[in-house]
Amino acid sequence: MGVNILLVGAGAVGAFYASRLHQPEKGVHVSVVCRSNYKAVLASGFQLKTRAFGEYTFKPQAVFPSCKAAAEANPSIVYDYVVIATKALPDIDDEPQEVAPVVTPGRSSIVLIQNGVGIEAPHRARFPANPILSAVTVISAAQTEPGVVVQHRWTRISIGPFSGDEDSSLAQSTINQRDQYAQSSLERLVAIFHDGGISDAEGWDTIQIQLVRWHKIAINAAFNPSSVLSGGWGNADMVNDSELRQHTRGCMQEVFDAARKIFGRPFPSDLATIDAIIRSTERNKGSKPSMLLDWEAGRPMELEVILGNPIRIAQRYGIQMPRLQTMYGLLRMAAQKRGIQRPREATPSTAKL
Amino acid sequence: MGVNILLVGAGAVGAFYASRLHQPEKGVHVSVVCRSNYKAVLASGFQLKTRAFGEYTFKPQAVFPSCKAAAEANPSIVYDYVVIATKALPDIDDEPQEVAPVVTPGRSSIVLIQNGVGIEAPHRARFPANPILSAVTVISAAQTEPGVVVQHRWTRISIGPFSGDEDSSLAQSTINQRDQYAQSSLERLVAIFHDGGISDAEGWDTIQIQLVRWHKIAINAAFNPSSVLSGGWGNADMVNDSELRQHTRGCMQEVFDAARKIFGRPFPSDLATIDAIIRSTERNKGSKPSMLLDWEAGRPMELEVILGNPIRIAQRYGIQMPRLQTMYGLLRMAAQKRGIQRPREATPSTAKL
Repeated sequence: MGVNILLVGAGAVGAFYASRLHQPEKGVHVSVVCRSNYKAVLASGFQLKTRAFGEYTFKPQAVFPSCKAAAEANPSIVYDYVVIATKALPDIDDEPQEVAPVVTPGRSSIVLIQNGVGIEAPHRARFPANPILSAVTVISAAQTEPGVVVQHRWTRISIGPFSGDEDSSLAQSTINQRDQYAQSSLERLVAIFHDGGISDAEGWDTIQIQLVRWHKIAINAAFNPSSVLSGGWGNADMVNDSELRQHTRGCMQEVFDAARKIFGRPFPSDLATIDAIIRSTERNKGSKPSMLLDWEAGRPMELEVILGNPIRIAQRYGIQMPRLQTMYGLLRMAAQKRGIQRPREATPSTAKL
Repeated sequence: MGVNILLVGAGAVGAFYASRLHQPEKGVHVSVVCRSNYKAVLASGFQLKTRAFGEYTFKPQAVFPSCKAAAEANPSIVYDYVVIATKALPDIDDEPQEVAPVVTPGRSSIVLIQNGVGIEAPHRARFPANPILSAVTVISAAQTEPGVVVQHRWTRISIGPFSGDEDSSLAQSTINQRDQYAQSSLERLVAIFHDGGISDAEGWDTIQIQLVRWHKIAINAAFNPSSVLSGGWGNADMVNDSELRQHTRGCMQEVFDAARKIFGRPFPSDLATIDAIIRSTERNKGSKPSMLLDWEAGRPMELEVILGNPIRIAQRYGIQMPRLQTMYGLLRMAAQKRGIQRPREATPSTAKL
């Protein structure tokens, strides 16, 4: 029995993982939804230049310009996995609405390869009966021109199921059934990754994957907005300045403390300590965080999922994160001033996790 | 017996108070040191357009381009008061060094009409035997062209003595003598202000004047840097945004809490509460904080006295101010990125108060 995967948002990270998941000889078929690189990928697929697997071409099963187009092209297809690897902009995009045409209720597993926290809630609200798999990556990759993807370092992807049924109208038996299905869906996906050579694809439980996600947000929330607000310094510049070192450390501490309270346990010991993050950042000269690149290009930033959501989730647990809230307030208004970010009317999700 | 006053930094605020202190008929003579407006003031004095006292011309006793020039012009004069009304930039200017030529040791009272906290320490270190009077103003005034000063609202000036002898090598008896002299000097200065029509000139004790100063810093530290970091919003815009309202409130709370711990008592009840400040700021539409005007003009900002000094003073009492420290780190590096602020080698004062 074959496996159909639709990858939505085939930028550098999405295209890299899509190319490893695509195993037609084993019946695993990956199609992609492309935006800016649609024409190039339709014409000649992806050219991959990877450190992990050398150079190769990846021709997806099919290439679509939108989820709607994908649904119309294959009305009868059931996608086992709808993998979303877009930038997470819940204040601007209604992503569940966009992917709805390709999500078969109760069947398609929705896989979120995205930054930030609280990203699952809008999908849970829209697709109460579908498995949601939350994925956190550690990878350095870039699309150097449309369809050309360079993977510099790392391949790790951590995946775990998301439940989040605070507001659900589903019967508990339906939820239990869905979550059992999510578990087998997770195991199958991790196995496909392993078959594709991603040996550090890891499956986790619902709490552990959130801890991994919050650990990554600690780093992103400390460095991304600071880079923009300080006028464009890179991560290494910041930790090598005594005041910004204290600031970034303080930001990470706020997230570490909040996560411990929210989940009732500290970060797993295999995740880097704040000291270790600071030390490795000292040496990472020349790299600019994604939010700075977005800001410099006049593109919307992942403000809500990197700052807004963690602040709101923490507040619901009675936890304040003053440094993060300060940066959130400042950067949100700075983006408005520049006309970069025009939030849609709907407020970002306020579901718990 | 006459009183000689030298006012250093005759911008809008300095010129307004100088014009009220100057009472030649009573033997009170005010000379001024001007920078950018030197030529205009030398030629025709100051034109004042005041709400409190109508329109009038103020011709100072003498006009100098620098303290050194003042000292050379009148080598034998003793200034009873050297009133400093410049912008406080301890990271850039060595102000005690600049005023030293006009300060008679043990005789001249140094009056600091400046924003920020910790501004007295460099003067105390340089002039251990001179009275220092610390002054906090509530006034709205602007220099619309060189030598033309408009006073819009308010006249209040609160003044109190500063001791600060943690690192002093003076004998205790000398300190006592100096502080007694400071007290009589303060009383005389307040009386001259009253004679000049500033009926809300108020004399306070050493603790109370610091509480007034820290109360003002609560407002300045909350709104000034936020205005720059948020991309140029005014104070009213900020409190009318829910996130920046929470942020500015949090900043003020940090200073209120710190001041209570440092001084062992809350702010006097006649000073505005945080709620009252927020409410009055809501209505103050269109006004831009001074730090934003400086930033927009590419001038150095009063970062050290508004953020750096309060943070360092609080830290010596074991108190953290995370929101302020975050803004300090960010804005300091943003100013460096723009090439606005090139700190001199000497670190800002670290004396206690």
